[in-house]
Amino acid sequence: MATDKIRIFDTTLRDGEQAPGCSMTLEEKLRVARALADLNVDIIEAGFPAASPGDFEAVKAIADADYGPVICGLARCNPEDIEKVHQAVNGARRHRIHVFVATSAIHREHKLKMAKEEIIRSAVGAVRMARELADDVEFSPEDASRTELGYLAEVVSAAIEAGASTVNIPDTVGYTVPGEFDRLFRYLKEHVEGIDGVTLSVHCHNDLGMAVANSLAAANAGARQIECTINGIGERAGNCSLEEVVMALKTREEFFGLHTDVDTRRLYPTSRLVSSITGMHPPRNKAIVGDNAFAHEAGIHQHGMLQHASTYEIMRPEDVGIARSNLVLGKHSGRHAFRDRVRELGFELDEFETNRAFQEFKKLADRKKDVYDGDIEAIIMSADGATSGPYTLKSLEVRTATDRDALTTVTLIGEDGQEQSASAEGDGPIAAAVKALEAVTGVAVELRNFELHSASVGEDAQGEVTVTVEHDGSSYRGNGTSVDIVEAGCRACLEVINRILRRRTSGLSAPPSDPTRATI
Amino acid sequence: MATDKIRIFDTTLRDGEQAPGCSMTLEEKLRVARALADLNVDIIEAGFPAASPGDFEAVKAIADADYGPVICGLARCNPEDIEKVHQAVNGARRHRIHVFVATSAIHREHKLKMAKEEIIRSAVGAVRMARELADDVEFSPEDASRTELGYLAEVVSAAIEAGASTVNIPDTVGYTVPGEFDRLFRYLKEHVEGIDGVTLSVHCHNDLGMAVANSLAAANAGARQIECTINGIGERAGNCSLEEVVMALKTREEFFGLHTDVDTRRLYPTSRLVSSITGMHPPRNKAIVGDNAFAHEAGIHQHGMLQHASTYEIMRPEDVGIARSNLVLGKHSGRHAFRDRVRELGFELDEFETNRAFQEFKKLADRKKDVYDGDIEAIIMSADGATSGPYTLKSLEVRTATDRDALTTVTLIGEDGQEQSASAEGDGPIAAAVKALEAVTGVAVELRNFELHSASVGEDAQGEVTVTVEHDGSSYRGNGTSVDIVEAGCRACLEVINRILRRRTSGLSAPPSDPTRATI
Repeated sequence: MATDKIRIFDTTLRDGEQAPGCSMTLEEKLRVARALADLNVDIIEAGFPAASPGDFEAVKAIADADYGPVICGLARCNPEDIEKVHQAVNGARRHRIHVFVATSAIHREHKLKMAKEEIIRSAVGAVRMARELADDVEFSPEDASRTELGYLAEVVSAAIEAGASTVNIPDTVGYTVPGEFDRLFRYLKEHVEGIDGVTLSVHCHNDLGMAVANSLAAANAGARQIECTINGIGERAGNCSLEEVVMALKTREEFFGLHTDVDTRRLYPTSRLVSSITGMHPPRNKAIVGDNAFAHEAGIHQHGMLQHASTYEIMRPEDVGIARSNLVLGKHSGRHAFRDRVRELGFELDEFETNRAFQEFKKLADRKKDVYDGDIEAIIMSADGATSGPYTLKSLEVRTATDRDALTTVTLIGEDGQEQSASAEGDGPIAAAVKALEAVTGVAVELRNFELHSASVGEDAQGEVTVTVEHDGSSYRGNGTSVDIVEAGCRACLEVINRILRRRTSGLSAPPSDPTRATI
Repeated sequence: MATDKIRIFDTTLRDGEQAPGCSMTLEEKLRVARALADLNVDIIEAGFPAASPGDFEAVKAIADADYGPVICGLARCNPEDIEKVHQAVNGARRHRIHVFVATSAIHREHKLKMAKEEIIRSAVGAVRMARELADDVEFSPEDASRTELGYLAEVVSAAIEAGASTVNIPDTVGYTVPGEFDRLFRYLKEHVEGIDGVTLSVHCHNDLGMAVANSLAAANAGARQIECTINGIGERAGNCSLEEVVMALKTREEFFGLHTDVDTRRLYPTSRLVSSITGMHPPRNKAIVGDNAFAHEAGIHQHGMLQHASTYEIMRPEDVGIARSNLVLGKHSGRHAFRDRVRELGFELDEFETNRAFQEFKKLADRKKDVYDGDIEAIIMSADGATSGPYTLKSLEVRTATDRDALTTVTLIGEDGQEQSASAEGDGPIAAAVKALEAVTGVAVELRNFELHSASVGEDAQGEVTVTVEHDGSSYRGNGTSVDIVEAGCRACLEVINRILRRRTSGLSAPPSDPTRATI
């Protein structure tokens, strides 16, 4: 059956990253961009270059790395923003400038204080300027789903005439429902001249839990690009989840007559990478990538399953890259067995990365009898951060008892190779560890959030800790992994402190606590 | 505007509870049932009485408590199951018997090995028997969305003729999409005689992320009952989420011309209760009840927000009962201030519960300078379990260091008032604590999973730990809360051990590890 292609436009690094607690470092963004290229998405929206110097640098680094997909940057309708996107993205062979302006009455009156005609002039000017700098230009009327249909058609027609090659319809506040969105897309198809010559796109938010269904309704009515994020991260209730919309199109290919070029076997490893970096772990009942997504524990189901897998399974775990097994490695497992397992879990490591991961595996196997798939994933995920100083954790000692404060002693090794120790008391071992770290490093931090997730099973499972810490008005996130939860927490805090110190040394200022941001 | 009413049928205690890791004790089920009654749902599906003696007891306890909503129990199409439901639910003034049988080709051939006619006879017999025992009978053709339309209409017609008062159409495997489901419901409305005399219902699973949208498509095409669960818990990717579908209907009331009787200001407290009991915390980007659902952190958004709230807000936090404030209580806060805050957070406690919670609050305020809303919620949520022996934790002492095993000493007080201590070593303090608890109590447990969630902010925030433990082939879940994460973990494990011992003393056998279960 001949099916039309849906382009997958991933905005994990732009709309996803601006969700509270989801900001990423430049290194983390590069890892995610490479994973998205491996996943074979069509377009990566890498950021909003005008938001801050850090955003600009990240978009530029991703464009310069040029992993394969089209690299896109977001701009408001002004020359400075558009120029910045152009400078940031033009290192990629294929790049796109994405301009947006709000069009709904509520935004016109209360945010922009601009009349309908002014907005059209602004959009036309921006699209024309972008087209002078790039062949590939996308235009988005923000809050399109709450814009008067007639006016929306006017704005979109003007943008197409000015040279937009993709027109994106955002449901900015997650307000629409499939039946209504279907009508909106059909209206545009009918009333906008030249619409068949451009790619129609859809961008949905999940405030009422319908981002995936709304995106599919748009595709069914003619959209050929879907904007989405890994794990559905994004502001408020997040964006359309890439893994859900891709697997819905694949599972119901006959119904929709549409397909994507995504390598679905990379969905689970990519989801795992993003959750490990952001500390936003999908709940067990998350579709496609949650721990329970493929579990069939109920008695009747198990009986059904035994008879015929498809009785209850509309997708197979291997189709989305879940290769978990009960295979256990241990301290006698060799390099070869380790490397094979890593590959089966969906990771491609180079020689250097394999060596580092194997060394970590050996250290872990000394402390922990059975090493499970989850442990191996945790080792690979923690590749960055922990090893980049100035400080490394030499040892940690904790004494705590219910009737008195916890006492924690940390010993760090500085860049000069010297050991420095400090002890501190606190309400619990983590509070005490934070104080001791502050005493050694001289960096004052305030712990805002602490989450722990066990990477595998058993008493000696590794705990993956994500901390959110405030320093000097800015928020930082750090990860740490250990079989000892206090040590994992201490490592996560140290990772943040190291990052603050590296930033200081390199002369970079702290990330602005309230950067200019955009959403559509 | 006159709108039609949608009945909300909550199946958190049946379909939700059978998800891996979501099983609840009888006491927990009663608390959830009371919360659902406060939320004003129309029907509570309390369980599947034939699954196990524990399920039967729980359904009976909920029916006998008779908090207000219709109490429903699930049965396969056999006399034993139906009789058990009748015995379990008839203590409630209004009660319902819900019978189901699979109808799709794949289920007929591979699971039931029954011909089409046999299945109709079985359904008719079951509905007739149920009608002899109760006026209110619901019938569900399992896997309806993958059943041939003509045959589905035949089955449904036969069930209505036999006396079913509600006919429910389940998308058992989460396979359908709104456009397709709309056609299915319109087909039934057209081809089933007598369908206008019964309540048409919908039951969706979220495997492709479309449970809410599919439920609304059904409602738009004539369904007047929606089956759903709090936080969308349920097998695999879960069920239609109650809070999302209710808020979608409320926010888009004009579009749908439908309403529910749910008290939406109880949505957040109810979600918090269920996540606290099950340890399944919704992710920050969960619609309606996630931590970020109402956050507006992006710069442009904040600017927009200042101008006019509705620029980016389609619902108000207070509409769903989020009453979080920056109000901080401390050790000088009196009983009156505490009680007021508890009420503002959406909890109704009786005199006894208020006393207990206030004592816990005072203890916490001694250890922790600032007591936030999250801390107060954690105190109220941990009402059960911790205080019901035989053992209580007197003290815990931990010594751990990176270069050697952790050493943990626990001192428990038994029912006889005697103190007993044990020390043990392990890879980390939790592993050591589990061994020490085993040594004192004589109960061997294996830790399978450990999750920590911080209840409020700051170094001295309380950690809410959920552990999953195996004992004698069965799986148990326990919760513990403390400002010290090791203590919280130890309390969670002790809660499980106490439950195992109480079960032993009462002569109850362990819950069957593979009980008979059903899903539609």
